Amino acid sequence: MLPVAVDAMGGDHAPAEIVAGAQLAADAGIPVVLVGRADDIGATDLDLIEASEVIAMSADPTKSVRTMKDSSLVRCAEAVRDGRASGMVSAGNTGAALAAATLRMRRIKGVARPAIATPLPKPSGGLPNVLIDAGANIECTPELLALFARMGAVYTRARFGTAQPRVGLLSNGEESSKGTATVKEAWTLLDQAPWQVATSASFVGNVEGTDLLSDDVDVIVTDGFTGNVALKTLEGAARGIIAALLTAFDADDDARKGAELLLPALAPLYDRMNPDTVGGAALVGVNGICMISHGSSSAKAIFHAVKTAHELAESGLVPELTAALA
Amino acid sequence: MLPVAVDAMGGDHAPAEIVAGAQLAADAGIPVVLVGRADDIGATDLDLIEASEVIAMSADPTKSVRTMKDSSLVRCAEAVRDGRASGMVSAGNTGAALAAATLRMRRIKGVARPAIATPLPKPSGGLPNVLIDAGANIECTPELLALFARMGAVYTRARFGTAQPRVGLLSNGEESSKGTATVKEAWTLLDQAPWQVATSASFVGNVEGTDLLSDDVDVIVTDGFTGNVALKTLEGAARGIIAALLTAFDADDDARKGAELLLPALAPLYDRMNPDTVGGAALVGVNGICMISHGSSSAKAIFHAVKTAHELAESGLVPELTAALA
Repeated sequence: MLPVAVDAMGGDHAPAEIVAGAQLAADAGIPVVLVGRADDIGATDLDLIEASEVIAMSADPTKSVRTMKDSSLVRCAEAVRDGRASGMVSAGNTGAALAAATLRMRRIKGVARPAIATPLPKPSGGLPNVLIDAGANIECTPELLALFARMGAVYTRARFGTAQPRVGLLSNGEESSKGTATVKEAWTLLDQAPWQVATSASFVGNVEGTDLLSDDVDVIVTDGFTGNVALKTLEGAARGIIAALLTAFDADDDARKGAELLLPALAPLYDRMNPDTVGGAALVGVNGICMISHGSSSAKAIFHAVKTAHELAESGLVPELTAALA
Repeated sequence: MLPVAVDAMGGDHAPAEIVAGAQLAADAGIPVVLVGRADDIGATDLDLIEASEVIAMSADPTKSVRTMKDSSLVRCAEAVRDGRASGMVSAGNTGAALAAATLRMRRIKGVARPAIATPLPKPSGGLPNVLIDAGANIECTPELLALFARMGAVYTRARFGTAQPRVGLLSNGEESSKGTATVKEAWTLLDQAPWQVATSASFVGNVEGTDLLSDDVDVIVTDGFTGNVALKTLEGAARGIIAALLTAFDADDDARKGAELLLPALAPLYDRMNPDTVGGAALVGVNGICMISHGSSSAKAIFHAVKTAHELAESGLVPELTAALA
């Protein structure tokens, strides 16, 4: 079984947390190979692909990928392209990961632009909904949104086993008359039967911001600008509410005692909402598996991303996408 | 002192909750006048402007405002225009309220399009941030976004007393290179000094979805599409987390006991997050005060909206906007 290539140099806590996460995966029986500078990584039993350069978090994505040919990110993408890895994981520069994967693995036939598919963890505990595009393509045509719908449906089946993904189009109201001109045209494209039949998906019409965590939809299609804003709004809201709860839990002796009694009931909720356990976002539409993790990823987050990359490779996501988009 | 005109017929719980909310305001010493059908409103000591028609929640906004000249919404806007009311409040058809206010009160000179300014309650308890536009203008030019920034700054000072509002532009990253072409052009317009001097505001650059509830910004500028999605995403996240918390609080005897002990510490947080206490959204840029309340508004929500309308009229919002935009 091919290993998952892990960019040991990318992320706010690289290489220590990344290597620790890769080790957790190896301990769980998932084959991994680190990619990066041996000197920085230090002592490890894990396999290593040496890469002498590191693309900084703030570097210009396309330029750095084109010029830093021995960077850990580029070497990760090449390992997947060359059949030496089943997929890659990076918590580094998101734009550079996107560029490296697109330039080295190439796009699947029929994919005008790859997109980022991000799972949205639900406080209710149901399967996460998938938001696509969560930030790769800032300006989108209706045709691109229709492509994201097809890719999102296939991805959601491979990732979560959803037999018939329900696909919604993010807009400012449920009626088909709502939205920008682009969204309204996308609605018309998505309302056609053939793509729904080809991907075993169903189009449920427009959905709103209140539906991001809804159990009535599986895939939420939007452009990368709106998707990024919505995703970060969810993150900020969850963080703000949790911070306020923790303050309340420590308000006085009664509150502290109450919080202690509640802990067993609250722990699973906290775990569900913890982005570390979700497994990160996937770049969908390239000829290979590429997981894009949060810059702040912990070892636990990297472990889940590696596990997801491994499972996606086993699930046959790329051949399924290739068939569905042919 | 002029009364606030309350559309007694608009909203999911009209007229009962609306009238009850207007009564709460009257009891608190705020002059109000109901607008609607006396027969439906029933016995009340409040003043009434009779209006025989009701614009349905789902009616076509512009068409209904143009044809239903004796509707409660149109009569509310006329009462403000004619100097018989200091402002209006409606929980009815949002688009129709927008059309009625714009057509009857007219726009302030220099206002190409009025916008909806919505306060975002913070779990931390700080002053709400103001999101503008929260849904009135689905497609926006850079010039419109720059207008929203000016109106948002003046509004935030009138509403919350913020001496020097910090204005952020909602985008998919903090750098000025981030965003759609429209957002990037708006960034350039907002980065100019003259408007900041004229409105005593400061432009803090791009902000992200995670910053909607931040204490480092006061006004968040965006188009009505993104604003609507962001606002409803916040609503949905808060609702989802609160529902999951309530489930956890009732998980078993320990959890129930813990929740009881925590209640006093949690109650203020719940109150802060309750949209009923925020006072609703304002349509900014018309020649008068127009508060647009949620369709599901309770009596308490209407009370706060009436109070806010009254305070905005007293604060001189319209003359201040007129001066700032001249």
